[in-house]
Amino acid sequence: MFGASEAARLGAVGTIVRSMSPNIEDYPHTGMMRYDTAVVKIPAVAIATQHADILSKMIREDKSLQFYMETHCESLEDVPSFNVIGELKGSEYSDEIIVVSGHLDSWDLAQGAHDDGAGCVQSIDALRVLKLMGYKPKRTLRAVLYMNEENGLRGGTEYARQAELKHEKHIAAIESDEGGFTPRGFSMSTSDTVRNRIKQWKPMLEPYGLTNYDDEGGGADIGPLEKLKTPLIGYRPDSQRYFSYHHTKEDTFDKVNKRELELGAASMTALVYLIDQYGLE
Amino acid sequence: MFGASEAARLGAVGTIVRSMSPNIEDYPHTGMMRYDTAVVKIPAVAIATQHADILSKMIREDKSLQFYMETHCESLEDVPSFNVIGELKGSEYSDEIIVVSGHLDSWDLAQGAHDDGAGCVQSIDALRVLKLMGYKPKRTLRAVLYMNEENGLRGGTEYARQAELKHEKHIAAIESDEGGFTPRGFSMSTSDTVRNRIKQWKPMLEPYGLTNYDDEGGGADIGPLEKLKTPLIGYRPDSQRYFSYHHTKEDTFDKVNKRELELGAASMTALVYLIDQYGLE
Repeated sequence: MFGASEAARLGAVGTIVRSMSPNIEDYPHTGMMRYDTAVVKIPAVAIATQHADILSKMIREDKSLQFYMETHCESLEDVPSFNVIGELKGSEYSDEIIVVSGHLDSWDLAQGAHDDGAGCVQSIDALRVLKLMGYKPKRTLRAVLYMNEENGLRGGTEYARQAELKHEKHIAAIESDEGGFTPRGFSMSTSDTVRNRIKQWKPMLEPYGLTNYDDEGGGADIGPLEKLKTPLIGYRPDSQRYFSYHHTKEDTFDKVNKRELELGAASMTALVYLIDQYGLE
Repeated sequence: MFGASEAARLGAVGTIVRSMSPNIEDYPHTGMMRYDTAVVKIPAVAIATQHADILSKMIREDKSLQFYMETHCESLEDVPSFNVIGELKGSEYSDEIIVVSGHLDSWDLAQGAHDDGAGCVQSIDALRVLKLMGYKPKRTLRAVLYMNEENGLRGGTEYARQAELKHEKHIAAIESDEGGFTPRGFSMSTSDTVRNRIKQWKPMLEPYGLTNYDDEGGGADIGPLEKLKTPLIGYRPDSQRYFSYHHTKEDTFDKVNKRELELGAASMTALVYLIDQYGLE
């Protein structure tokens, strides 16, 4: 994150990072970096793993190698944008809100199909499926698509600020932001009581492939709800392919397997249903 | 399997099957069919799901629709072929054999990368990795690549026949024939004693993603070893994508994720190691 500033401190005029990828590819992975304002800002780029390998070889062969770097990135002025929210009103405890969510923005190299189109579609689907079944929720179910996760977490931060302002009671927040892959479990950032309650439902959730309930963590966008003491739950799909697509031009619709995406949506829907029926305390 | 003969019994002159696929595609899935010799043999074809949908629509719109079918399949005479076997000799109980295996043949529309190139590569890899580590097995470890699983199970049948003839003691047979996908568990066809012994190793195997040890079944090729009372163990990867590629022109190398393939090989290697070290009884 601060590599460029650390390098500048040592006299570097620019930094080149090998993309964080498990594969040898010819396209770079983008991501966030930050400058330490006490040091001069130098250009920082990520290059493809394949190109990094070629560059390493060239440097070994020619110690006087010169590298020409040209970047066109700029930070434009902020413009207004919005979270997108849909809800099914609760019939019994309508003041108790269950959030199921993903983020709407993506790095602009591709569609952001896994990061985080999948999470958005699954969140909408949880409410769509329950509505289609004619299910009348006891609590208020809210699908939230946050704006601007990738560049500052603005949507998630504002959502939590509004929740606090309006004294809304969020009894659970679920996020899917690890891709539309086959289910593995739910991670949690909550009390042992809540974790153990969810673990009691394991026999009902395990048939979806949800075997792991022990990991820590919820999701970036729901993180700001922690100050309201909301139990945070992350949908955890299989992670093997995520970082092949993440933040690259390859994160496109055709990389999403329909069945795996649907199993994720079903996993989240089942959890929403159980929380709605039985609460978390 | 016997659909064509059942149809012929009712007067059909041919049968058209919608490919068994979870997707709408424009290519057919091949597979086995058998004729009941008491009935006339009629042509039988599988068509793509997309084409089946078009055909259904056309039939609904025009009840007098004619369908012209031309097939070029034929059964050629048998030719000699061979199982491929490699082994690491055991240092302590060399008469006790642990088999790790896949099948070498595939439907000829594609490379058979998942069915069953993955299983072959993983079986070789189990022995390769243990050898590379300088591991000296107590028991004899044997990687077996069976010939002709798809059209009659000839290799697996002959392997078991030879094992019986030579009075070989097979203490376990593992097969990977469900694709090179991310690990889920091991299925078994064995006694409760053996199953429970393997389940005791769950804490060591679970980090690979191997959570399920309750399913029945081993694998087609190792099935004939059942008569020698060999415990049969099937490597069970995630199954969501298998039948998208299975027996089609799409079962090619690029559909295999390197990391998922390697996790499968690691899963099998770990199990081979545990059986070699501690036995199954």
